[in-house]
Amino acid sequence: MSKTLIFGHKNPDTDSITSSLVMANLEKALGNDVEACRLGKINKETQYVLDYLKMDPPTLIDSVEDGADVILVDHNNPMESIDNIDNVNVKKVIDHHAVVLTTGYPLYYRAEPLGCTETVLYKLYKEYGVEITKEIATLMVSGIVSDTLLFKSPTCTPMDKEVAEELARKAGVDIVEYGLEMLKAGTDISDLSVDEILALDAKEIDIKGNKVLINQVNTASIDDVMKMKDALEEGINKAIEEKGLDLFMLLITDIVNSNSQTISIGKRADLVEKSYNVVLEDNTALLKGVVSRKKQVIPVLTDNA
Amino acid sequence: MSKTLIFGHKNPDTDSITSSLVMANLEKALGNDVEACRLGKINKETQYVLDYLKMDPPTLIDSVEDGADVILVDHNNPMESIDNIDNVNVKKVIDHHAVVLTTGYPLYYRAEPLGCTETVLYKLYKEYGVEITKEIATLMVSGIVSDTLLFKSPTCTPMDKEVAEELARKAGVDIVEYGLEMLKAGTDISDLSVDEILALDAKEIDIKGNKVLINQVNTASIDDVMKMKDALEEGINKAIEEKGLDLFMLLITDIVNSNSQTISIGKRADLVEKSYNVVLEDNTALLKGVVSRKKQVIPVLTDNA
Repeated sequence: MSKTLIFGHKNPDTDSITSSLVMANLEKALGNDVEACRLGKINKETQYVLDYLKMDPPTLIDSVEDGADVILVDHNNPMESIDNIDNVNVKKVIDHHAVVLTTGYPLYYRAEPLGCTETVLYKLYKEYGVEITKEIATLMVSGIVSDTLLFKSPTCTPMDKEVAEELARKAGVDIVEYGLEMLKAGTDISDLSVDEILALDAKEIDIKGNKVLINQVNTASIDDVMKMKDALEEGINKAIEEKGLDLFMLLITDIVNSNSQTISIGKRADLVEKSYNVVLEDNTALLKGVVSRKKQVIPVLTDNA
Repeated sequence: MSKTLIFGHKNPDTDSITSSLVMANLEKALGNDVEACRLGKINKETQYVLDYLKMDPPTLIDSVEDGADVILVDHNNPMESIDNIDNVNVKKVIDHHAVVLTTGYPLYYRAEPLGCTETVLYKLYKEYGVEITKEIATLMVSGIVSDTLLFKSPTCTPMDKEVAEELARKAGVDIVEYGLEMLKAGTDISDLSVDEILALDAKEIDIKGNKVLINQVNTASIDDVMKMKDALEEGINKAIEEKGLDLFMLLITDIVNSNSQTISIGKRADLVEKSYNVVLEDNTALLKGVVSRKKQVIPVLTDNA
């Protein structure tokens, strides 16, 4: 029997990568034959974590054989997963997102409305009595810091914070110092092409029949990113044409001050204006206090569509 | 704030009723304001359990206000739930079925491919350190015996059996003696009308565009039930017309010898013939070894549709 492959979503973020590694470690401790995988490039934030731990990334895969056993972490939406998700055997899901996947068979499904998959995994380690090593604790705390923007995101729950603080002690890191360094490493887009920036953390979703792509780029300075506005708009327009999008919403999120500047283009750009009561001038507007795509963007656009 | 309502599926079986009570007890122990509810009549098997414990059934409800907080146990399929499921806030799901529900928001979703919801609930009690009293143990073991037909169903896992045996000790019951009495109580259909028999444990599902209703009646004697064949067929034909069904598949399951006699009617009755390599004579055929709708009927019909 071949190994069960564990992976997070496409365009993997730090939670998807670390959750894959942390879940693989748990399954191995329970005697299961698994392999940590990923569906895309390691971003700079995650690379900071792997460098800190001198650890190799999960195995890069771009497809899985039909019928293979897989475990999904940090996602369940088929649009964010491998292309043949309907033809594989999803054995387990460990997640913290809305339920989108449907299966024709019962499976192990474990999701909680928490800020990060790692907080769910932390509970699983406790339940199974599997040791959380210094290395695993560092992976876990990195995922939580990333997904909650160091506890500033409205997706962050008291439990995420409590777990992260305990994990930081176990990892032997100062959570604010380590976390800010990690987040800042992720905002370095100086050597990325516009296409790479626009693919960094892109989620394509269907909002009431509208094909919407929401891309989020974290930064320590919105002004620095907005210097590239013309080139970004060109890339966005290209993506709209190629993918037949109704709306491309780019969020440039200031992780220090917790605001987002958006560049929104497409025939449903009115959704952004309606949702945040703003006027897009030259395709752009400041969305005060908006940092979470999951809590402050997707449901708001959906309500206004 | 109003109470969170906890309920299992329509046409509740013993697992749905006991899980509602057991989950309510757990939530209350955790300080949450909840109420155990049910979406339909108590069947005789479940009544045996409630009588044994001198316990009232959960509150009967037929609707829930839009926006209400609910917890689903033993189901997640909207077709088996309250009619306005899309307009309520599903806070948690505790289940052991395929994932069918989709939500626009993250929630606590806990499902495992086990024989019974109670086995998942048993794990939750352990995780939260909540005491399993003699009464709760009796409810739990009753659910497991019911769903697994006293461990004979192919849906039964080693964990269901192990948990049930521990619970039986805690409940102070001889599991075989108590279990058989309970199952037999459930097979007493002597005072039921044909319409009541046909509604006992009916699941309506969509199989590749076909509207299929699968009804299961447990019995200690197939012959006894087949004496009513003419009246059952009349009721089935009425249901087909009223609900616009493509197939009505009645399973008369012999819980002692683990076989099912089917009466299958409808323009897609060929699905049954193809799926089990049988010929329906006068609408009926014996399906040897078939006892589980979930494992031996729904997926088999789906594969052959």
